[in-house]
Amino acid sequence: MLILITYDVSTSSAEGRRRLTRVSKKCLDYGQRVQNSVFECILDTTQFRRLKYELEELIDTEKDSLRFYNLGDKYKTKVEHLGIKHSYDMEGPLIL
Amino acid sequence: MLILITYDVSTSSAEGRRRLTRVSKKCLDYGQRVQNSVFECILDTTQFRRLKYELEELIDTEKDSLRFYNLGDKYKTKVEHLGIKHSYDMEGPLIL
Repeated sequence: MLILITYDVSTSSAEGRRRLTRVSKKCLDYGQRVQNSVFECILDTTQFRRLKYELEELIDTEKDSLRFYNLGDKYKTKVEHLGIKHSYDMEGPLIL
Repeated sequence: MLILITYDVSTSSAEGRRRLTRVSKKCLDYGQRVQNSVFECILDTTQFRRLKYELEELIDTEKDSLRFYNLGDKYKTKVEHLGIKHSYDMEGPLIL
């Protein structure tokens, strides 16, 4: 299934930027970075549970906000894009 | 249906911050701001088409990225949250 992960962290501090980098690296194990703090991950139920646990360890739960949206298996028609497509990860797969 | 809107804009420039404010105001006509540049809107098909058109007029399509995710009507079990819940809009409805 496609899990969309949105991460709200203040990048005005070095700690915030570090956490964003760590969260990004973790999410990239399972998918791609489609915006600066938005990640699309393909996960099964077990991977999703593990990823949530791992991300909770990386973020500052007193300062940051992390949201997960389950788009299911038939997600291709559920995503639309306007504007530029940034290349956050040159080695990653193409953005849908 | 719930449409999740994620907006990637550089807020290091005054123009970028202005565009974010305008996009935010437009999205708040239909829903709530759950993260700095993430909006959850409840829309029917006609409203969704109109909102996409209106947002395209507000953003800089050469610089910004705007993505739409359709969570459908049965979205309540599809959203999970970790960490802090920012109050971006004090007058808005509570975050799920």
